[in-house]
Amino acid sequence: MPSTSFTAEELAQRFGLRLHGDAATHVDGVGTLARAGASQLAFLANTKYRGQLAQSQAAVVVMREDDATDYERTALVARDPYAAFAKISALFEPTRVRDPGTHASAAIDPSASVDPSAHIGPFVSIGARSRVEAGAIIGPGCVIGEDCVVGAGTELIARVTLVTRVRLGQRVVVHPGAVLGAAGFGLAMEAGRWLNVPQLGGVLVGDDCEIGANTCIDRGAIEDTVLEEDVRLDNLIQIGHNVFIGAHTAIAGCAAVAGSARIGRYCLIGGAAGVVGHLEICDKVIVTAMSLVTSSIREPGEYSSGTPLMDNRSWRKNAARFKQLDSLARRIGSRGTD
Amino acid sequence: MPSTSFTAEELAQRFGLRLHGDAATHVDGVGTLARAGASQLAFLANTKYRGQLAQSQAAVVVMREDDATDYERTALVARDPYAAFAKISALFEPTRVRDPGTHASAAIDPSASVDPSAHIGPFVSIGARSRVEAGAIIGPGCVIGEDCVVGAGTELIARVTLVTRVRLGQRVVVHPGAVLGAAGFGLAMEAGRWLNVPQLGGVLVGDDCEIGANTCIDRGAIEDTVLEEDVRLDNLIQIGHNVFIGAHTAIAGCAAVAGSARIGRYCLIGGAAGVVGHLEICDKVIVTAMSLVTSSIREPGEYSSGTPLMDNRSWRKNAARFKQLDSLARRIGSRGTD
Amino acid sequence: MPSTSFTAEELAQRFGLRLHGDAATHVDGVGTLARAGASQLAFLANTKYRGQLAQSQAAVVVMREDDATDYERTALVARDPYAAFAKISALFEPTRVRDPGTHASAAIDPSASVDPSAHIGPFVSIGARSRVEAGAIIGPGCVIGEDCVVGAGTELIARVTLVTRVRLGQRVVVHPGAVLGAAGFGLAMEAGRWLNVPQLGGVLVGDDCEIGANTCIDRGAIEDTVLEEDVRLDNLIQIGHNVFIGAHTAIAGCAAVAGSARIGRYCLIGGAAGVVGHLEICDKVIVTAMSLVTSSIREPGEYSSGTPLMDNRSWRKNAARFKQLDSLARRIGSRGTD
Repeated sequence: MPSTSFTAEELAQRFGLRLHGDAATHVDGVGTLARAGASQLAFLANTKYRGQLAQSQAAVVVMREDDATDYERTALVARDPYAAFAKISALFEPTRVRDPGTHASAAIDPSASVDPSAHIGPFVSIGARSRVEAGAIIGPGCVIGEDCVVGAGTELIARVTLVTRVRLGQRVVVHPGAVLGAAGFGLAMEAGRWLNVPQLGGVLVGDDCEIGANTCIDRGAIEDTVLEEDVRLDNLIQIGHNVFIGAHTAIAGCAAVAGSARIGRYCLIGGAAGVVGHLEICDKVIVTAMSLVTSSIREPGEYSSGTPLMDNRSWRKNAARFKQLDSLARRIGSRGTD
Repeated sequence: MPSTSFTAEELAQRFGLRLHGDAATHVDGVGTLARAGASQLAFLANTKYRGQLAQSQAAVVVMREDDATDYERTALVARDPYAAFAKISALFEPTRVRDPGTHASAAIDPSASVDPSAHIGPFVSIGARSRVEAGAIIGPGCVIGEDCVVGAGTELIARVTLVTRVRLGQRVVVHPGAVLGAAGFGLAMEAGRWLNVPQLGGVLVGDDCEIGANTCIDRGAIEDTVLEEDVRLDNLIQIGHNVFIGAHTAIAGCAAVAGSARIGRYCLIGGAAGVVGHLEICDKVIVTAMSLVTSSIREPGEYSSGTPLMDNRSWRKNAARFKQLDSLARRIGSRGTD
Repeated sequence: MPSTSFTAEELAQRFGLRLHGDAATHVDGVGTLARAGASQLAFLANTKYRGQLAQSQAAVVVMREDDATDYERTALVARDPYAAFAKISALFEPTRVRDPGTHASAAIDPSASVDPSAHIGPFVSIGARSRVEAGAIIGPGCVIGEDCVVGAGTELIARVTLVTRVRLGQRVVVHPGAVLGAAGFGLAMEAGRWLNVPQLGGVLVGDDCEIGANTCIDRGAIEDTVLEEDVRLDNLIQIGHNVFIGAHTAIAGCAAVAGSARIGRYCLIGGAAGVVGHLEICDKVIVTAMSLVTSSIREPGEYSSGTPLMDNRSWRKNAARFKQLDSLARRIGSRGTD
């Protein structure tokens, strides 16, 4: 399979890394430290895996200066070995060809416009007044509704739905099953029945964002739901209407952000974490997995909620005491909080 | 864009609201209190936003009597400004045309029946013995399996799957990616391997329900999974087999209801909340976000579980103590519960 | 509807169960204990439902020896009544016919191979070098990308996406909306922007696995994401890249397993539970619903986290005290843990 091959020296030069060891060492693929073959490149970023270095068969290992000092084989030294590895391994990524042009089966509204350099796959439907820009790739089974824009170089992998008024910037990647622009969950109760609040806004997604598989981003009620540039959403995430997410924020799988919440830039929201609606999280906040944010966060830092995992028997005993916590505290003379 | 326009007086009459201020004030769209333009209508429902009233550019604001007393510009007075706004803003919702008829690409089983007034979009497949009633809209890429019914005026927006034995009432809306009628998760272990328990039931969805994007409702094992009328489900919700959900209950995104749970009417289940199987929740119960219901709830009211968010350092200290809670309680002389 | 009919004696013989009562009792379908009709078979497995036995109309009830002793009507006695019921009820499952052959609308790459005995439904696309083996069923709207394998007898119900390098074993069932093989969430930060780490691995799914609706299994970064045989995943589950799940493990809906976690065999992971990345869970571990596993589990057993549900007023008081837990503990003279 590997037809691509590089020497350690070529890689060092191409990516600006310091070469340690044999410049002529030959690399034709990548592998994990534990299982890389004798012509593969691996990396050591997490010190937890340092013990694997001695037995590794890898031809070349990308590592930090510290780790390289005593290393007797070939290494590429990087300040951030993981980032360096990411760039090197891209050399070995199989290229997929998506020729320009529209599959014969596609159902495209006459008022929609598709750049001739775009690729439109089979079973794609594109609604009125929507636009697909240069070099965009619309994979099989995608549904693009009305008044949407797919920016240049953006890719909808497959089976993505843009419901209506969704504007994607350039080089955005949307994974299969994602639904952008569905009506937000806006309800008012009247005379004992739910009344739908029209969702007149859209969804605005900045350049270089990535939206995970089966993730949902609802359109805004009046104004737009907004993702600034370079926002990264993992799979199965729910983003409510009128949420705003600042540039470079990354959110892990199964997280949920309720309507009108505002999340700053460079935040990291952990898997299955929740953010309730109508609050603000400032820049550079980390929320750990499965934590629930119930009020605004105004200081950068790491935040958590929840309790530690225990064997079920111990957990039952301790959890039962949680119900007595206030009375226990009173008994030992502590005043209540808030 | 706005071609629709109304005076404040016209709106007051049409929706039975009291007019405050200039009857001739002209409205051609809606906006938020903070950003509405000078010919737009906004609303004030949440007192948290009252401070925005003075600077608002909105031509007309829908508000409560109390807020209107001192208001010097034009207002429409409503007991429930949010519900009134919902109805007014519907006037400005862009209308989508879905002509009756079946797209040439649709694959419809000869034994299925489609009302001539229904709209069947591109790449739709409809299985044996299924029926689509008058005025229903089946958007692009939907899959309707065998023995399903789509009631009059019901809309499957796009890429919805009804697997088998799913009967939707009238005026139901199902958002993209939702999967109704997949086999419930019924497993028995035998001789060290899983055995599938056949899922012979279906899914019954009452009139006026709404099912969010990528939400899943499994079909029943023996009897049906049931949603009564006017149930509202947000996105990415899991409803297990044989669940019963009473009329007018609303469930927020990412919640999960396990098999055979019974939820009453007029309940509100918060985002990412969980309900374990085989229990009952009575009418008018509120479960807050990310809470887990592990036993039946027999009294209306609001219920919660979980711990408050803290900075990670404090959280670590306190969470570690959770493991000692029972011994701490014993030490101060409290007897165990349950 | 029921055209199939069996006597109690026939069922006892076919499934190796002890007959109690009238051998000639006639059964033409299945029902729940509470609502089975007079010619239906029901089961009693959960002692919680024993009270329903007296009033049940069921012709035959599958039950344990203990329950049968005093039972005056017809029963089939099984060590595991639920497993026995599963097998009996399969007799009454409607059979779906999926004829061999490829629907005219399907878009199949010339380099893909499809066994003539396989069924390929409408609007299916199959990419380069993929292979569909004997008797496989690819339902409507499925997208199979490049370099995938669908094993013999495997069924993709509808609208399933296999992105790339996904190899499914034999007799696997994948429910609608599931996405296998999307790029894992691998990011490195460089100069203030996210850099994608190429996801060069695939997904390997063993024989007899079942993957729920809208569940996502990401492809590995370097090596594969792996499910051994007979793994059962419910709906809306997230499986991160390079996760390994041992044979016969079952995971309930909305659970999330982060990248590179390793889960053993015969584990049961509860609904909405979370497993953080890069840890190991040994065989035969039960994690209860909505619990979060944050470090490796080396002993079989049942594990939990979280707090009990309370009325919101009580919860607020107790939850506020959680923030004081460490200082309360110090006050009563307990030393800190870890």
